[in-house]
Amino acid sequence: MTQMKIPVVRNILQANERLAAENRKCFDEAGIFVINLMSSPGAGKTSLLEKTIDHLGGRIKMAVIEGDLQSDFDAARIQKRGVQAVQINTDGGCHLDGNMVQLALQALDLTGVELLVIENVGNLVCPAEFNLGEHAKVTILSTTEGDDKPLKYPLMFQLSAALVINKIDLLPYIDCDVQKIRQSARQLNANQEIFEVSCKTGEGLPAWFAWLEKKVQQTRAR
Amino acid sequence: MTQMKIPVVRNILQANERLAAENRKCFDEAGIFVINLMSSPGAGKTSLLEKTIDHLGGRIKMAVIEGDLQSDFDAARIQKRGVQAVQINTDGGCHLDGNMVQLALQALDLTGVELLVIENVGNLVCPAEFNLGEHAKVTILSTTEGDDKPLKYPLMFQLSAALVINKIDLLPYIDCDVQKIRQSARQLNANQEIFEVSCKTGEGLPAWFAWLEKKVQQTRAR
Repeated sequence: MTQMKIPVVRNILQANERLAAENRKCFDEAGIFVINLMSSPGAGKTSLLEKTIDHLGGRIKMAVIEGDLQSDFDAARIQKRGVQAVQINTDGGCHLDGNMVQLALQALDLTGVELLVIENVGNLVCPAEFNLGEHAKVTILSTTEGDDKPLKYPLMFQLSAALVINKIDLLPYIDCDVQKIRQSARQLNANQEIFEVSCKTGEGLPAWFAWLEKKVQQTRAR
Repeated sequence: MTQMKIPVVRNILQANERLAAENRKCFDEAGIFVINLMSSPGAGKTSLLEKTIDHLGGRIKMAVIEGDLQSDFDAARIQKRGVQAVQINTDGGCHLDGNMVQLALQALDLTGVELLVIENVGNLVCPAEFNLGEHAKVTILSTTEGDDKPLKYPLMFQLSAALVINKIDLLPYIDCDVQKIRQSARQLNANQEIFEVSCKTGEGLPAWFAWLEKKVQQTRAR
């Protein structure tokens, strides 16, 4: 059975690369910086997005594509903050793919948008394999997930331009060595930007906002 | 592309059901109670297993199959406690399947074993779709993942015989309503046993141990 699966998976990945390239062309022509935000369930993707909208929303026009198995809780949280959000329901599917994003783009008004955040399905494994056309993959790891996670789930950390270590406010109450996370993440990807933040207290978020704003400015200048 | 994927997935799931049924026959003939332990990364699968071995290991002979993308950290943690553990590395694959468990069984000495725990890959989505031949699926949800998770990732909660809500020691420091988790989990599956535990402090674990021991005794009596 395992052998049977391999060529099929390869075909799907090849078809996805083609669609991702089409999406990327659309983003580049429109001058939009696009991130693919990935993490385990509950690591804080939507919370980071809410904080980012609160801080950058006044200066940068944003839009959001929300990926979820079947609910629209997260899109509702984003829309409440006055940002355009489209919900993709994967109907049980464990990741977003290029085709789903292409369909979602038809429902978005991209006029003037400078930053598009695609919030992937909560899953530290599958989303890493499917490019969506984004300029940067960003992984969030919560301190409560444990400091062994980069080496146990390496692909996402290898491919991400930035790693956001969230929930640092809980460090006094748990066994988690942030230096170990940093070291193993850097071992997998030496060029990764690493941010230590708490979406609850706001600690560490300014460095994340600054990185994102710089990326948007670089895209604007091209 | 989406349409292309559907028949393939169905074939894989059908092939998996056949292999899972073969595994189940093997477990039943040997009189072993088998659980498929599933959760997001870092919710506490291995920690719950360690506590369970410490408590039940003297009375019940256990064995463990560990599923991970590529590391063997978890199998090493189990073997350190004197319990037979076989590591399955999925090489990036996001779930265990019946075939992988069948291969792992060839490497296990099941003589006298009464409880086999299969620790699945950390993922709240994909593992739920693949039966391994187990008698009971058990989902662990950590309080730090948030109280909206049963309704956002419903399949695993629908199919599980037991839900272990872990890390209740962190409740004073986070925004998580355990009653909301209970209500939504029961809405998805009214017959699910629910345990509130802390693998760190030991709170709530006796009820989990008692449930598991009862299941092993019922299997022994058959």
